[in-house]
Amino acid sequence: MRATVIHAPYDIRVEEVPDPIIRQPTDVLVRVLRSCICGSDLWPYRGEVARKPEPGARIGHEFLGVVTDAGSEVTGFAAGDLVVAPFLWSDGVCDFCQEGLQTSCVRGGGWGSPEVDGGQGEAVRVPFADGTLVKLPAEAASDDRLLTALLSLSDVMGTGHHAAVGAGVRPGSTVAVVGDGAVGLCGVLAARRLGAERIIMLGRHRARTDIATSFGATDIVAERGDAAVAAVRELTGGQGAHAVIEAVGTEQSMTTALGIARAGGAIGYVGAPHGSGDGVNLRTMFDANIALRGGVAPVRAYIPELLPDVLDGTIDPSPVFDLTVGLDEVPGGYKAMNDRAALKVLIKP
Amino acid sequence: MRATVIHAPYDIRVEEVPDPIIRQPTDVLVRVLRSCICGSDLWPYRGEVARKPEPGARIGHEFLGVVTDAGSEVTGFAAGDLVVAPFLWSDGVCDFCQEGLQTSCVRGGGWGSPEVDGGQGEAVRVPFADGTLVKLPAEAASDDRLLTALLSLSDVMGTGHHAAVGAGVRPGSTVAVVGDGAVGLCGVLAARRLGAERIIMLGRHRARTDIATSFGATDIVAERGDAAVAAVRELTGGQGAHAVIEAVGTEQSMTTALGIARAGGAIGYVGAPHGSGDGVNLRTMFDANIALRGGVAPVRAYIPELLPDVLDGTIDPSPVFDLTVGLDEVPGGYKAMNDRAALKVLIKP
Repeated sequence: MRATVIHAPYDIRVEEVPDPIIRQPTDVLVRVLRSCICGSDLWPYRGEVARKPEPGARIGHEFLGVVTDAGSEVTGFAAGDLVVAPFLWSDGVCDFCQEGLQTSCVRGGGWGSPEVDGGQGEAVRVPFADGTLVKLPAEAASDDRLLTALLSLSDVMGTGHHAAVGAGVRPGSTVAVVGDGAVGLCGVLAARRLGAERIIMLGRHRARTDIATSFGATDIVAERGDAAVAAVRELTGGQGAHAVIEAVGTEQSMTTALGIARAGGAIGYVGAPHGSGDGVNLRTMFDANIALRGGVAPVRAYIPELLPDVLDGTIDPSPVFDLTVGLDEVPGGYKAMNDRAALKVLIKP
Repeated sequence: MRATVIHAPYDIRVEEVPDPIIRQPTDVLVRVLRSCICGSDLWPYRGEVARKPEPGARIGHEFLGVVTDAGSEVTGFAAGDLVVAPFLWSDGVCDFCQEGLQTSCVRGGGWGSPEVDGGQGEAVRVPFADGTLVKLPAEAASDDRLLTALLSLSDVMGTGHHAAVGAGVRPGSTVAVVGDGAVGLCGVLAARRLGAERIIMLGRHRARTDIATSFGATDIVAERGDAAVAAVRELTGGQGAHAVIEAVGTEQSMTTALGIARAGGAIGYVGAPHGSGDGVNLRTMFDANIALRGGVAPVRAYIPELLPDVLDGTIDPSPVFDLTVGLDEVPGGYKAMNDRAALKVLIKP
């Protein structure tokens, strides 16, 4: 089959790789219908990771597709099932999985790790399929818009929801969102869904802020840095936002998030820390009782909660995908996202 | 009257100062029956604060006593009332006070700040008395043990409770406590009160760990640093504690707290950051979804909740006071606490 591999920074290729096969009785094989490129895929693309990927490593961690084969111990899935995969696989039975923190599964792991396929390819072997995958209604396969919306459950919609939950969004909350990428935008959707009264989006790219507005943002702050902090404070009577969604993961974004958080509020952070400093100022947090809560999102736990709302159209994250490519065009998709010419790239293998 | 003043590091004196008078119609005057020395008083004592106190500054922020006079606009208190003061004064009417975050009161402040008496003296002018003070039953004045227990509501018991709440202690939780001072010990009491099943106290001083055990600690870990982390992990099947109370405020204590927190758990931190580094490792927190929640405790909000349990003996924090001095002996009290010869010094002016 063909799949995306990364050889070195800025060297993404689509190559012939071995077809996946059932290796464990708990595996299933999935033919990929939709995959996509994540903002975090740009870090290895740019070489911004501490441990460089092995040349030829597979990449991509968001996909949905159709089961083509199932191992003998798989009970929940059979060939023909339409399924979505969260961005990590997990056994479904350990203490953490049982508690809904599948990201800490003691036997889990990531797509594209050695011996495990990446999501940006024609097919994927899914370990611990019963613990990992979630079944989708078969009829969704014929609805192009819905299929794209459902793909967001693989990562960005669940991650935005995790940020909103971490930030403590509740009915009536004033929420501020730092980060105008797909996760930040999904954070707007999630905040609205949780009842936020006011949602302030920090962003200056019109195409993105237009999506934010359509998702429920009530105010757009185009300033950056200290000016953005001042603008949010101005909008909130000097107090700041009860709930801040931090969806970037740089020192600057965390500093901004802390600057616009209201005393007694919380920052829900899902931007993986990937800069030199983390921007956390414990003294500021201490004096104002600002909580910091978040991390790698256990999207597997959130799919059952969010799925009905995506199916019935209560939330429609599909607009975050603004460029669609075929598998052979994936390298161009990376370039488009890296150049910020595209917000999030959908892949139809 | 006589009151404690600080002139320079290690130069604490008890001196004649002006008698307090009603300055604002919202003030009351309190004759102090009990005060005490806080672990955080040792920072200016040692010169470990960024801004040195003015020579001759008043000190002390925990007290209870009897109202001797009340301003014309005070409605809740009259001469003769027995009252306890939280460690900050607050107006009781601003948004934050109404929400129970009196530590962020827009007009509030600290004892011993310019023009405001410290708690370690014979009397105190209390600003915004209706917002600040809490009335105690008159009969408590004749119960020496109870009066001492009630003084803990001024700071350490409410602060320990804040840490337990921040750490998310709930029925069945496994809790670990970093810090064997009065706040950490009150954190044990608070954790037990909130239903913790297992409470692991990190400490090596027998007098303190004995109090911890009497307060409800089920396990004592005498190791420090990496060995302490390993010991707590061993006690918790490798997973760590759901809820960690951090009651020190140094880089080392936060590093330990993070090392023993279970994935998906939380650190409730009330040790005011006062070292060079803060020990926060955002990457570790991110990967394991460990929340950081706490800060300066809004003890004013907690007094009404905790008071009944102190009055009926459900919790008795009085053992944290292990040395009692008169006002003239306060300098020796500081020395005893600084030398760790005393855990917490009670002052009977």
